[in-house]
Amino acid sequence: MPNSRHGRFITFEGGDGAGKSTQLRRLAAWLQARGHSVVATREPGGSPAAEAIRGLLLSGRAKPLGALGETYLFAAARIDHLAETIEPALASGAIVLCDRFIDSTRVYQGIGGDLDPAVLAAIEAATIAGRLPDLTLVLDLAAERGQQRARARSDTPDRFESADLPLLEARRQGFLAIAAAEPARCTVIDADRDADAVFADVASRVAELLGLPEGLGDG
Amino acid sequence: MPNSRHGRFITFEGGDGAGKSTQLRRLAAWLQARGHSVVATREPGGSPAAEAIRGLLLSGRAKPLGALGETYLFAAARIDHLAETIEPALASGAIVLCDRFIDSTRVYQGIGGDLDPAVLAAIEAATIAGRLPDLTLVLDLAAERGQQRARARSDTPDRFESADLPLLEARRQGFLAIAAAEPARCTVIDADRDADAVFADVASRVAELLGLPEGLGDG
Repeated sequence: MPNSRHGRFITFEGGDGAGKSTQLRRLAAWLQARGHSVVATREPGGSPAAEAIRGLLLSGRAKPLGALGETYLFAAARIDHLAETIEPALASGAIVLCDRFIDSTRVYQGIGGDLDPAVLAAIEAATIAGRLPDLTLVLDLAAERGQQRARARSDTPDRFESADLPLLEARRQGFLAIAAAEPARCTVIDADRDADAVFADVASRVAELLGLPEGLGDG
Repeated sequence: MPNSRHGRFITFEGGDGAGKSTQLRRLAAWLQARGHSVVATREPGGSPAAEAIRGLLLSGRAKPLGALGETYLFAAARIDHLAETIEPALASGAIVLCDRFIDSTRVYQGIGGDLDPAVLAAIEAATIAGRLPDLTLVLDLAAERGQQRARARSDTPDRFESADLPLLEARRQGFLAIAAAEPARCTVIDADRDADAVFADVASRVAELLGLPEGLGDG
């Protein structure tokens, strides 16, 4: 039985190959088995207009707009996603699980580009209007291991996955720096283990957030 | 019979109430009656992703992103519209008629805001990649007359129509300044006449563009 009727917003962050989608699916099943209403979503996307913007971003057609233009497209998609999907779900008391959110924007648009961090922060503030995740799970993995895993997957690598190792490692450090700066929101989980061991940590942290007493590791 | 098999790109510009949609529909019928393949479209919108972005812009939800953010959304919608609708139609030899294009962005985002004109010009250049209209018909009308006409229409005014007279007049002057600066592309047509008289001028200018000899006014 859920011990709280107000929604919670949990995000998964980390590089490609860290297992975000797998852990999110397991957490959704684990929460549903405990009587929680769960909405699983992702960014960019998660609502009709946001999915259309995702298609534009993934196609590479928006590339001429540059890093700032891309950042505004992510922001617009996020505004729609929040208004159409996330906020209504939270208002209904659901637990929203989102694959990537603001930290991916901070890391992917903020590292290795030439965007002013103050501009990125201002766009983020205008976009989320105070809606920070209640919990962010940062799945941490050495860049080389993440790249190996992402390449081993059957799906075609999209443009977010094509980057060289130094950039991937810089992004990893970017996620870790966010987690260090916001320890109340962010928990770093070692993702270089088998999925069961990773999930035990995920479930343990989520149980703590929700005030669940027991049965933490059984997924 | 069309005397040319390569497409032409014709845009309609001007304030709300100037009759752009009416004239565009008449021109489409007039061209089709002369054997031309015609694609009638509009901005923002005109392709699935662009229509989704249009919905976001018209809803007012993207407002927190500010004028620059809105400009990037218009730009992204335009990139998709060009790639998915306009360029394929031109490649097939069609005449593309578009209700609003770059000049509306220049005027609506450039006047009365705080955006650097150089930034707007750079975004435009990255967006259209050289695809300027072959002909832009600027339907010119005093701001007060346009407002009266827009208000008399049965459709609900959207946010692009809500502005006070001094701003509407400044936009009108903005369209006229563009036409004065680019006379080879732009033709100003007095829109404060009945629709038949306006269309006679529209058809005459288009006939000139296409090298059509006769039958200019019959629409």
